[in-house]
Amino acid sequence: MLFKDISIIDENLNIKNNMYVGVAEGKIEYVGEEKPQKNYGEEYDGRKKLLSPGFVNLHTHSPMTLLRGYAENLPLDRWLNDRVFPFEDQLNCDRAYYGTMLSIAEMLSSGTTSFTDMYFFGDGVMKAVIESGAKTNFGRSIVSFADEDIFKNDRFREGVYLTEKYHNTENGRIKIDMSLHAEYTNMPSIIQQFGEYTRGRGQINHIHLSETKSEHDACKEKYGKTPARLFYDAGIMDSPAIFAHCVWVEDSDIDLFVEKGATVAHCPASNLKLGSGVCNTYKLLEKGVNIGIGTDSAASNNGLDIMREMYLAAILPKGMCNRADIVTPRDVFKMATINGYKAQGRADCGVIKEGFKADLIVMNLNTPNMYPDFDIFNNIIYSADKSNVILTMVDGKVLYKNGEFMTVDVEKIGYEVSRLVRQVKSEVKGND
Amino acid sequence: MLFKDISIIDENLNIKNNMYVGVAEGKIEYVGEEKPQKNYGEEYDGRKKLLSPGFVNLHTHSPMTLLRGYAENLPLDRWLNDRVFPFEDQLNCDRAYYGTMLSIAEMLSSGTTSFTDMYFFGDGVMKAVIESGAKTNFGRSIVSFADEDIFKNDRFREGVYLTEKYHNTENGRIKIDMSLHAEYTNMPSIIQQFGEYTRGRGQINHIHLSETKSEHDACKEKYGKTPARLFYDAGIMDSPAIFAHCVWVEDSDIDLFVEKGATVAHCPASNLKLGSGVCNTYKLLEKGVNIGIGTDSAASNNGLDIMREMYLAAILPKGMCNRADIVTPRDVFKMATINGYKAQGRADCGVIKEGFKADLIVMNLNTPNMYPDFDIFNNIIYSADKSNVILTMVDGKVLYKNGEFMTVDVEKIGYEVSRLVRQVKSEVKGND
Repeated sequence: MLFKDISIIDENLNIKNNMYVGVAEGKIEYVGEEKPQKNYGEEYDGRKKLLSPGFVNLHTHSPMTLLRGYAENLPLDRWLNDRVFPFEDQLNCDRAYYGTMLSIAEMLSSGTTSFTDMYFFGDGVMKAVIESGAKTNFGRSIVSFADEDIFKNDRFREGVYLTEKYHNTENGRIKIDMSLHAEYTNMPSIIQQFGEYTRGRGQINHIHLSETKSEHDACKEKYGKTPARLFYDAGIMDSPAIFAHCVWVEDSDIDLFVEKGATVAHCPASNLKLGSGVCNTYKLLEKGVNIGIGTDSAASNNGLDIMREMYLAAILPKGMCNRADIVTPRDVFKMATINGYKAQGRADCGVIKEGFKADLIVMNLNTPNMYPDFDIFNNIIYSADKSNVILTMVDGKVLYKNGEFMTVDVEKIGYEVSRLVRQVKSEVKGND
Repeated sequence: MLFKDISIIDENLNIKNNMYVGVAEGKIEYVGEEKPQKNYGEEYDGRKKLLSPGFVNLHTHSPMTLLRGYAENLPLDRWLNDRVFPFEDQLNCDRAYYGTMLSIAEMLSSGTTSFTDMYFFGDGVMKAVIESGAKTNFGRSIVSFADEDIFKNDRFREGVYLTEKYHNTENGRIKIDMSLHAEYTNMPSIIQQFGEYTRGRGQINHIHLSETKSEHDACKEKYGKTPARLFYDAGIMDSPAIFAHCVWVEDSDIDLFVEKGATVAHCPASNLKLGSGVCNTYKLLEKGVNIGIGTDSAASNNGLDIMREMYLAAILPKGMCNRADIVTPRDVFKMATINGYKAQGRADCGVIKEGFKADLIVMNLNTPNMYPDFDIFNNIIYSADKSNVILTMVDGKVLYKNGEFMTVDVEKIGYEVSRLVRQVKSEVKGND
C-alpha cells in the first residue's frame, strides 16, 4: 500500500506535507517526498489527511467491556467487591473472547494500534487478538492471599503456560507479560517469589500501583514502606515494569522509577471516575519517568477511546497545577506513541520511519474541528477526536477504514455480547 | 417528519423503547407507543437509535474558533493580552461570520441544538445564525475602563441595537442577551449602570465570573467584596443571569446565586486548559444552583464538543472530591438540556413532550462503544461521543445528518477560514 500526497508526523514530531509512505510486508519500507519507483499496488489518496503512528493503550482489561455500565457510582473497593468480582465469577474463555472482540473494535475505531492488557481467560483473549489482528501485550494477573509456593498458584502457572504458547507469536504481534494484580491483593511471599522468578527473563512486569489513597496508606501501615518500595525491594523493577495508576506515589517512589527505568501507565479518566484522584504527571515528567497512557477498562472509564484519554492527559495537569504551560501536546503525543511502545518492549514501533512496523492511523483533517490549522499538534491533542480517525493499520494490515471493521463482525459481536451479559446477570442474581 | 420504532428519553429522564415521535411546524406534535393516524411525510427508521433532546452549549464565543491553536500554553492574562486581543483587533463582521459558521458546524455535529454566545461583531454572528438555522442567545460584551455614561459606550449601544434588530426574531430562535465581559474589565460605575438598565427588562445578563484566583482576589482587594457580591449589589442578579466559570466562588457567593436563581455556566475543559482550576459543581448542586455546561471558545478548549464537556463534567467532581457517587449521569444530562434551556429563557425546549420545540438529536446505539446497554444513561454520558450523533434537528429542521450539513457548506467555510486567518496573522505581525 502506498500513502500518497499525505501529511505525516516524522520521527522528530514535525509535520511534513505532501509525502509518500510505502508499506510492504508489515513494515514501513519507504518515506519520501518523491513518489517511489516501486509499484505498491493499492494507492491511498492522502490529501487533507494526516498519517500518524497509531496509539498505544498501555493499561486496560479488555474482557471487562462486558461490564460497561454495570457497576456505577461506587468507590473502587465496593465497585470491585460488590459488583465486579461476582460478575467476573461467571465469565469463561468464550465470554472473555466476545468482550475482547468488542473492545478491540472500539480501540481500532479510536486509533489504538497496540494495547497492554491485564486479565484472565488468556486463551479467550488470545483467540480474539489472533482473529482480529490487534497488537497486544497480555498479562495474566496473579491474586493470592495464600502463603504458598508460587509454582503451585494456578494464576502464575497460567502466565507461564501463556508465555510458552503465545509469547512473540504472530510475527511478534503478541507478547505475554507477567503480572501481579497489586500489592494489596497478594501476600508478601508471593511478591518476593514473583520478583525472583521474573528477574532476567526479559518479560515485562505489569502491576497496579498506589491507585487509591487507602490502599497506599494501608501498605505503609502494614510493611512500613510504600508499594513501590516493596516491589523495588522484591526485585520487580529489575525487569522492565509498567505500573498502572500511580495516583498516590511519593517523591521517593518516583526516584525508584527513574533509577530502574520503570514506566507509569497514566489512566486519568478511570482515576477521576472512581474517585481515586489525579496522578501528578507533571512531576513524573520533570523527573524523567517514562509515562504511557491507558484507558483502564470500560467498566471504569467507560470507553476505550485513547484520544479522549490523551485530551485528559493534556488538560488535567494544567488545571491541577494552575499552570497553562506544562505538559505540551508533544509530551502527550509521545506518551501515547513512542513511550507506550517502548514500555511494551516494541522498539520497532511508534515512528514513521523506514524499517519500522506499519502501525499507522490516518486522520481526516477536513472536518470543522480541524480548522484553522495553526498547529496540527495542538489540533490533534485538543480538537481531534475519534471521529477524525478514518483508517487504522496494524503490521501493515488495514483493520479499520471509514467506519468499517475488516476483521471484527460488529453486528454479530454486539448481538452476542447483549445475549451473554443478560445471561451473566441472571446467573449473578441466582448466586446472591 | 415521523421518528418511528425509536428509543426516547422522556420528560422524567426514563428510556422508552419502540416509540413514535411526530414533528410538525417546528414542534413535537405527537409522542406515543402507537403509530399516529396523521401522515407526517418523511419517516425515520429509529431501530437501534435513541432520540434525545439536543444539548445546550451555555457559554462560548463562536467567532473565536478562528483562533483555534493560535495561543497555546499560556495562562489567562497572557493568553488574552499577548495573543487573543491583538488577533481580535483585526477581525470584522465578515470574518466573524466565517468563524461562527465553522463553530456552528462543529456544534451541530456534536449534538448542540442551542448555544449562548458572548462576543462582538453581532451582525456577522447573526448572519451566520440566520443562515445556518442554529438557535442562539447572543450577548455583545461590554468592556469599559472609562468612568462614562453607559449610554455613550459603543459596546452597550451595540447591545441595545442588536436587541431592537434581532431579539426574539426567527420565530424566537434568536434571543439577544445583555452582557458585561467581567468585573475586572469594567469600571464600577459601568457595572452599576448596567444593573440599573437591565433590571426588569427580562433579558438575560451573561457575565464571566471568578474564572481565575488572581482575578477573584484582586476584586476583593479593590472593593472589599467578591465579584458575585459586587454584581448582586449592582442589581445584576435581579435579572435572569448566567455566570460563566465560577471556579473561585465562595460559599456566600453560592448563596446569592440560590437566592436570585442565577445560573452557573460550567466550563471544565477551558478552566483546566488555561490552568484556572476546577469549579466545585458538587457543592453548587448540593445547594441547588442551576448549572449548565459550556465549552467556552475553541481558542481555549480547543473544541466545541458538548459531549466531551459533559463527560468532563461527570468525572471531574468525582476525582476532585474523591467520591465516586456524586454528580450522576442524569445530573449532567439535565445540566446540558433542561437547565441550559431554562437559563436561556427557553421553557419550551429541552424535553421530548408534545408542544415542545423540536430541538432533537438522534444517537446511534449500534456502535461498539454502546454495548452492552445495562444503563443507556451511563452510556450516553460515559461512553458515547460525538460520533454517535447522527442527526441534529433545530425547530423541526434537520441541520445535520450522517456527516452532512444541510445549511453550512463546510468545504467553502474551511477554505475561507484558512485564507482569512493567514491574512489576519500577517496583519497582526505588521502591527507588532
